[in-house]
Amino acid sequence: MSNPSLLILPGDGIGPEVMAEVRRIIDWFGDKRGLAFDVSEDLVGGAAYDKHGTPLHDDTMARAQEVDAVLLGAVGGPKYDVLDFSVKPERGLLRLRKEMDLYANLRPAQCFDALADFSSLKRDVVAGLDIMIVRELTSGIYFGEPRGIIEEGNERVGINTQRYTESEIDRVARSAFELAMKRGKKLCSMEKANVMESGILWREVVTEVGKDYPEVELSHMYADAGAMQLCRWPKQFDVIVTDNLFGDLLSDAAAMLTGSLGMLPSASLGAPMANGRPKALYEPVHGSAPDIAGQGKANPIACVLSFAMALRYSFDQGAEAERLEAAVNKVLADGVRTADLLGEEGVQPVSTSGMGDAILGAL
Amino acid sequence: MSNPSLLILPGDGIGPEVMAEVRRIIDWFGDKRGLAFDVSEDLVGGAAYDKHGTPLHDDTMARAQEVDAVLLGAVGGPKYDVLDFSVKPERGLLRLRKEMDLYANLRPAQCFDALADFSSLKRDVVAGLDIMIVRELTSGIYFGEPRGIIEEGNERVGINTQRYTESEIDRVARSAFELAMKRGKKLCSMEKANVMESGILWREVVTEVGKDYPEVELSHMYADAGAMQLCRWPKQFDVIVTDNLFGDLLSDAAAMLTGSLGMLPSASLGAPMANGRPKALYEPVHGSAPDIAGQGKANPIACVLSFAMALRYSFDQGAEAERLEAAVNKVLADGVRTADLLGEEGVQPVSTSGMGDAILGAL
Ligand SMILES: CC(C)[C@H](C(=O)O)[C@@H](O)C(=O)O
Ligand SMILES: CC(C)[C@H](C(=O)O)[C@@H](O)C(=O)O
Repeated sequence: MSNPSLLILPGDGIGPEVMAEVRRIIDWFGDKRGLAFDVSEDLVGGAAYDKHGTPLHDDTMARAQEVDAVLLGAVGGPKYDVLDFSVKPERGLLRLRKEMDLYANLRPAQCFDALADFSSLKRDVVAGLDIMIVRELTSGIYFGEPRGIIEEGNERVGINTQRYTESEIDRVARSAFELAMKRGKKLCSMEKANVMESGILWREVVTEVGKDYPEVELSHMYADAGAMQLCRWPKQFDVIVTDNLFGDLLSDAAAMLTGSLGMLPSASLGAPMANGRPKALYEPVHGSAPDIAGQGKANPIACVLSFAMALRYSFDQGAEAERLEAAVNKVLADGVRTADLLGEEGVQPVSTSGMGDAILGAL
Repeated sequence: MSNPSLLILPGDGIGPEVMAEVRRIIDWFGDKRGLAFDVSEDLVGGAAYDKHGTPLHDDTMARAQEVDAVLLGAVGGPKYDVLDFSVKPERGLLRLRKEMDLYANLRPAQCFDALADFSSLKRDVVAGLDIMIVRELTSGIYFGEPRGIIEEGNERVGINTQRYTESEIDRVARSAFELAMKRGKKLCSMEKANVMESGILWREVVTEVGKDYPEVELSHMYADAGAMQLCRWPKQFDVIVTDNLFGDLLSDAAAMLTGSLGMLPSASLGAPMANGRPKALYEPVHGSAPDIAGQGKANPIACVLSFAMALRYSFDQGAEAERLEAAVNKVLADGVRTADLLGEEGVQPVSTSGMGDAILGAL
């Protein structure tokens, strides 16, 4: 049997630096744990635009459809701000999500014990926090038509369309219920059903799907109240399911609240392929951080943990994922810190590769 | 000259209780400061539905258009969850906003010194916080057409439309720049221009308006990053301007972060009327809190401070507004607390009217 295949898309900014550390860790799993991958690497985002004039080449797109999992660094940077909307770095990422049909975006918001004091929230509000936000990723206002800037009378009008079909809501709701079954059996669905008809349909379909999961305690919350409650007492949640746009804001807020932004991975999953594995793309929640790119200051942990999620969700290697997560926890407990995590007295930062060394050491 | 007119719409849940205290304060300004108002009262939300079968009677709408300012309590409650979308309590409020064309929603997020410890954030992150979120309130996805739930193939599709014209963006941007000029001369505009064309137009128009305010330092942030930054270090902001939906989430998150949710007022302003006063509606940021309604537990301060905003923005009585705000601050500094603000050792809560007494005493 051939090795499972990984497509690595480092992207822009700190993407290549953090991905270099992940590649070392992938190699370690091949050497030491008998988990060899066929790894290929390609361009996405501004890097792809610079070479091909498009943020995602068709060949790369085709390759992403074939492999067992895609690992992405980050896209974007000020250099590309002037580009037309249609070729901005983000379009490369959005095309991957859409064409691979990665409808369920899993964003854990976890507070690492050793880092609880980095949160702007009080320690008792965040210590031990471990929630999972399931964000719909291939529909809603990100992709709905009509869209664009049109002329009307003598002025321009900007238009976007929020659009959700029953089946789109159904499938992401099922992903969320499945996750809830494996976790605390508590799911909170967020929308604005008091203002938006798409939110009414969302609530109805989620409620309907819930009948197949009688063990899961389902609740509904308006997204504005959800934002509030995340800020007030995030531990009231276990799994949250929400649409593409609300998920974008709420998961970023939740990630920041943990104080562990540079640490948080994500998985974007689609339907099973012929080999039974889901279509999948893994990426850190943080962005391309152009201000610190190329200086060896970036924290590779979010990207490393994205690979751990790949081990768990694409390759059914939950125990190996835990091994890697434990190594990260150990390194943090030992006080190893990249520059983004400074603040404690007398701690000297390690570089991006220094953190990679430490994680490999702990493995 | 006749007295300025006020229409009071207590609404649902705790609305009537908190508004009763505001009426006493309005009377005080009439008796003691020679600021008499012609006050009328009417129904909105579920209360209006119960009587008229509609969350806002046409006569009430007409009256709201005539008066100098509207003061609203809160709308909604579980009793009305089963109602059809078109007659839900919220539709009454949304109709007022839309037909009065109240495009600029001013939401201060302020941390009261005496309450800094109520925040889930660390004291130094919130103490002294004072930012102003200007939310567009009459357009965007709240009102865009087409909208609804349609049949397509053999399933239902939920649709809403985000729609912004240049002039809609222009006018709310001007309100925000004007406010920034009176405050810290710093304005941050938030959208998702990396994903939504309506966000691109938003950014362009705000930038264009900014040329008329060269003294104001203008910045732009994606709304997801904005949510993060509000959670991380809210004091980096002075005035924020954003669209209707983002404003809904971001202002609620910001309000919660202050720890002073029961304290925060809002003003919704439109174009000047014939008498030079803007069309205006004032309401607390908190909701109708049906769980504590009718028990004398509600905190009337947000509603009281909404009246202070009315004094300032509708009646040009900045000094009287400050008098009222100072009275509230004094009461808080004296340790007077409603039930929502407990937590300090040995403090006994006062009732809604007890807080009203205390504020009147301080005046
Ligand atoms: C880069 C951007 C297009 C993207 C999004 O808005 O989805 C990002 O913010 C994210 O959350 O993954
Ligand atoms: C009650 C509801 C319709 C309203 C809104 O979504 O605008 C509320 O959340 C608010 O922020 O004033």
